[in-house]
Amino acid sequence: MVQRLPARPGDRLDAIETPALVLDLPAFERNLDAMATAVAASGLRLRPHAKAHKCGAIARAQIARGAVGICCQKTDEALAFVDAGIADVLVTNEVVAPAKLARLAEAARRARIGLLVDCDAGARAASAAALRVGVTLDLYVEVDVGAHRCGVAPADAGPLAACIASLPGVRFAGLHCYHGAAQHLRAPAERAMTIASATVAVRVAQTSVARVGLDADFVTGAGTGTWMLERDSGVWNELQPGSYPFMDADYARNSAGPRDIAFEQSLFVHASVMSIPVPERAVCDAGLKSFAFDSGPPLVHGRPGLAYTKASDEHGVLAVEAGARAPELGERLHLVPGHVDPTFNLYDWVVAVRDGRVEAVWPVDARGAVG
Amino acid sequence: MVQRLPARPGDRLDAIETPALVLDLPAFERNLDAMATAVAASGLRLRPHAKAHKCGAIARAQIARGAVGICCQKTDEALAFVDAGIADVLVTNEVVAPAKLARLAEAARRARIGLLVDCDAGARAASAAALRVGVTLDLYVEVDVGAHRCGVAPADAGPLAACIASLPGVRFAGLHCYHGAAQHLRAPAERAMTIASATVAVRVAQTSVARVGLDADFVTGAGTGTWMLERDSGVWNELQPGSYPFMDADYARNSAGPRDIAFEQSLFVHASVMSIPVPERAVCDAGLKSFAFDSGPPLVHGRPGLAYTKASDEHGVLAVEAGARAPELGERLHLVPGHVDPTFNLYDWVVAVRDGRVEAVWPVDARGAVG
Repeated sequence: MVQRLPARPGDRLDAIETPALVLDLPAFERNLDAMATAVAASGLRLRPHAKAHKCGAIARAQIARGAVGICCQKTDEALAFVDAGIADVLVTNEVVAPAKLARLAEAARRARIGLLVDCDAGARAASAAALRVGVTLDLYVEVDVGAHRCGVAPADAGPLAACIASLPGVRFAGLHCYHGAAQHLRAPAERAMTIASATVAVRVAQTSVARVGLDADFVTGAGTGTWMLERDSGVWNELQPGSYPFMDADYARNSAGPRDIAFEQSLFVHASVMSIPVPERAVCDAGLKSFAFDSGPPLVHGRPGLAYTKASDEHGVLAVEAGARAPELGERLHLVPGHVDPTFNLYDWVVAVRDGRVEAVWPVDARGAVG
Repeated sequence: MVQRLPARPGDRLDAIETPALVLDLPAFERNLDAMATAVAASGLRLRPHAKAHKCGAIARAQIARGAVGICCQKTDEALAFVDAGIADVLVTNEVVAPAKLARLAEAARRARIGLLVDCDAGARAASAAALRVGVTLDLYVEVDVGAHRCGVAPADAGPLAACIASLPGVRFAGLHCYHGAAQHLRAPAERAMTIASATVAVRVAQTSVARVGLDADFVTGAGTGTWMLERDSGVWNELQPGSYPFMDADYARNSAGPRDIAFEQSLFVHASVMSIPVPERAVCDAGLKSFAFDSGPPLVHGRPGLAYTKASDEHGVLAVEAGARAPELGERLHLVPGHVDPTFNLYDWVVAVRDGRVEAVWPVDARGAVG
């Protein structure tokens, strides 16, 4: 069930078998450097979200540039990253299943492991699992700062922190404050207003925690769409952007704010034209099983007049504009995924390229690790 | 990169680790039997589309009930099915890359292999690959019968068939006539009108083939939404439905026609509630990486008052209607995927259950086989 290697180091780009996930290393490295530099200058901690790429080699490249560790969202992802040598992993999610908590506790023998809680029962379950193994798990209180997914109301953060502090085997590590819904608000002013509102919520949560006599200073969160706002808020200490090394079509639809860094598109799906039934329509070999479509279809990169208009399982239909260069049978297309995270999850390998050659083929270690 | 086994044979349902793809065997078998019986009664051939499930064990169950072989859509899928013991595999897609054609030709030493062409260049490439290995590949002329994806215009089928017939190493095996866009037309009358129109297109293609002196009798195609129409058309000889063993939320939105068989929903994603931030909202552990969302969100099965309203990568947000039974932390939910095919492609294993126990855990052999 492991996919064939789509290329070998040293191959030319046109030898990559399609569809394949392909990473432009120079652009990727410029993105990594830009974020590392910007966060280092602020004195904050960078903990990139590795749910975006699920790849140990990429996580190591982030840590080599100063990241303190990584985030992920599932137990099996965390285990894959610990196996890949990452020493500090935060699962930014509630984990309540005893079997999964037992695995996280086992992993805490080898690495620093954190997770989120948003109720006393979650904290007690984590404590029981940690005690059984004789380790300490870092628990963060997840606060709903406006996205209305998981998390306690800001004013309820204190009592939950107190519950954690009363339990053996777990440590109250801080507040997890992430506004996922803000990341893709298109206008910079909308994003700024939403994070300003989230900042107020964080302060309410900090007051609630201080009231139970605990240190409420540590706050972690933020994403690629808003990280500069959290950085400059005065309340966040640690930033968790995930998509910035790669970018995608959905992030490209955000209008840039005055302080935003323009990360480059570095990730593409290479596809091949396999049918040209009529001059105004071509069909490529990458469809619903080669991209996630939750954020719309992929964009055709660097090929004016071609648009990806319709997908079925293994077909991508391309409209050819009048006057555009005619596509050729077998022609390679570079497609920008609509949404990077679930697209990475479809591939076992990411082909890293530089100067027209394949430099490495990295395993997507946590591909499919939804458990 | 292979996912953990979510269960073991003999496990109770509540021991299955979530998220997991779970197949209700009695419903699945009733679906297999109903289709096998209906197609056998018509005297036509059944060649189920295995792109839906990518699973050798399921393909073998279909063949054990009389299917002549299977269809799939990619070279690597075909190889996975040949490895799984399937002796007759039709790739219902154009394959033009020489490396992929070489693999199909190699596979033709071990199994009957067919594929589609919609241009002379495709036929010549397949011929060259077959010659190199010393095998015969079955080539079908794909005809655009109205879906406007791949395929030649009906009146152009004859010249392409003649090209195939003139080439060594390949055999003109018939016409591939599939109207994908018709499958999800909601009203039975719309589906009937569309397949009536496709039937006219098939006849035009047959006339074109007859005109070049070739036998135009063999026609393969059809899907779960329209197969009874193709069956009763008088022109199709072989039917390719894929989703009927499982069904999904999108097929459930089709209104049934007078002759349609009501296939049962047999495939579910089991998920667990991991957060209940407020009484009117719960969050489960299955999101964008546990379902394909191209056909909308999953449906909650057998739990009135709960609705899956929003997904992020690893979260599914559930709205709890006023008056509904309150969800519990850790509660199992059975979710119906929006679209079965790309959802199967996210899982390494399908857990086959009967009478409240796990009977088998089957590998999804061609998971991720997009090449």
